[in-house]
Amino acid sequence: MTFRASVLTLFPDAFPGVLDVSIIGTALKKGIWELETVDIRAFGLGKHRTVDDSPSGGGAGLVMRADVAAAAIDSVGAGHPDGDGRPRIYLSPRGKPLTQARVRELAAGPGVVLLCGRFEGLDERVIEGRALEEVSLGDFVLAGGEVAAMTLLEACIRLLPGVAGNEASLEEESFETGLLEHPHYTRPQVWEGREIPAVLTSGDHGKVRDWRRNQALELTKARRPDLYAASRDDAQTSARKIPRDSKT
Amino acid sequence: MTFRASVLTLFPDAFPGVLDVSIIGTALKKGIWELETVDIRAFGLGKHRTVDDSPSGGGAGLVMRADVAAAAIDSVGAGHPDGDGRPRIYLSPRGKPLTQARVRELAAGPGVVLLCGRFEGLDERVIEGRALEEVSLGDFVLAGGEVAAMTLLEACIRLLPGVAGNEASLEEESFETGLLEHPHYTRPQVWEGREIPAVLTSGDHGKVRDWRRNQALELTKARRPDLYAASRDDAQTSARKIPRDSKT
Repeated sequence: MTFRASVLTLFPDAFPGVLDVSIIGTALKKGIWELETVDIRAFGLGKHRTVDDSPSGGGAGLVMRADVAAAAIDSVGAGHPDGDGRPRIYLSPRGKPLTQARVRELAAGPGVVLLCGRFEGLDERVIEGRALEEVSLGDFVLAGGEVAAMTLLEACIRLLPGVAGNEASLEEESFETGLLEHPHYTRPQVWEGREIPAVLTSGDHGKVRDWRRNQALELTKARRPDLYAASRDDAQTSARKIPRDSKT
Repeated sequence: MTFRASVLTLFPDAFPGVLDVSIIGTALKKGIWELETVDIRAFGLGKHRTVDDSPSGGGAGLVMRADVAAAAIDSVGAGHPDGDGRPRIYLSPRGKPLTQARVRELAAGPGVVLLCGRFEGLDERVIEGRALEEVSLGDFVLAGGEVAAMTLLEACIRLLPGVAGNEASLEEESFETGLLEHPHYTRPQVWEGREIPAVLTSGDHGKVRDWRRNQALELTKARRPDLYAASRDDAQTSARKIPRDSKT
């Protein structure tokens, strides 16, 4: 099943942009995912195709109109106000921070409809009226939703079957285990006086596995005590669910 | 002073990409910031310009070599192993999550050197040997650092003087006040039966300000209790620092 991305934007020419390179670009050419851009400007009002207006209550900047945004949204998803079953996401710093868990859910679905904001913001009523899910990349502010849309799409598409060269490599990476990933090393054996840790060249696969697991734990504990605490809770919950004499 | 961005990547053609549109693109054309891309492949080894090798200790994927990455890094910043004073950032899910506070710091400096990873990861020794700062957008995984570099750059550049149309609008937005931003509304007065809240069209600027502040507080409390708690701590700290009889 092809993963379908519809991106509503004032800058359709910016797409596919960075999504056209490497494994994501190859997957687009192969039809593993498809990209439709919708120019919000085409739904603008009057001769000047106006899409924004002054904020009610005053203040700086301009706000994207609800009627214009709704018309753009309704133009995808078979024209239904309720859409075609794909999640409809408004990229906004006010949204729920994106997580790998949500990325996995989205990647397992039929695709996404992404609304890219510009200006000061979007009229709140269209967020409510079209049941948009507000998603944020993180606690910082962008000039528009376009680069955030690309980020979300790249995160999803790399998980689709047939996109990554080696699916096994997806299972060990950061967040998939609830931890940050262990350090990596490759040749040369010595670089600027720094050696590869001896355990990694010992040939003892058990020791390598233990070392990596331990490094991931220590790294997560040091850098992200929040993730570390959550992973400990998960581990305890799992342990409680498994009878002591069972094999795992 | 021009903000200088050097991006080390295997996909230099992906730049400026989305950074070429709207206010960020205009600022690039005006010389408010400049962009240098460095093709890591140019520092690859041998006839095939190899940049990666198998992970020490085994496992899936490929790891970017320390010597190749270091040569690319050293090629910018006047060739000094210590660089030219610009922060050197490796975009990685293992890094410290990017925040608006860090964005502000970076935007106030001379620029950034950004290393975009691909494959399974980067040899840990070059992160140590070149004192790279690891920065993450959030708790999700990308196919490479390119879209993350664009995101970080867009967040910084929009804060540079002369980039945003209205600098006042930067002061009210999400995170700048420690809170998520209040809802926005604009014409029409009624859309699909939904009215603009009456206070916003009352003409009472004091009431508008109070309403917006209250909405921002309620929204942050509901969606991001972590930010809300931090903003309460900050408010208490500030209150303690200011004598009760002083004007603010």
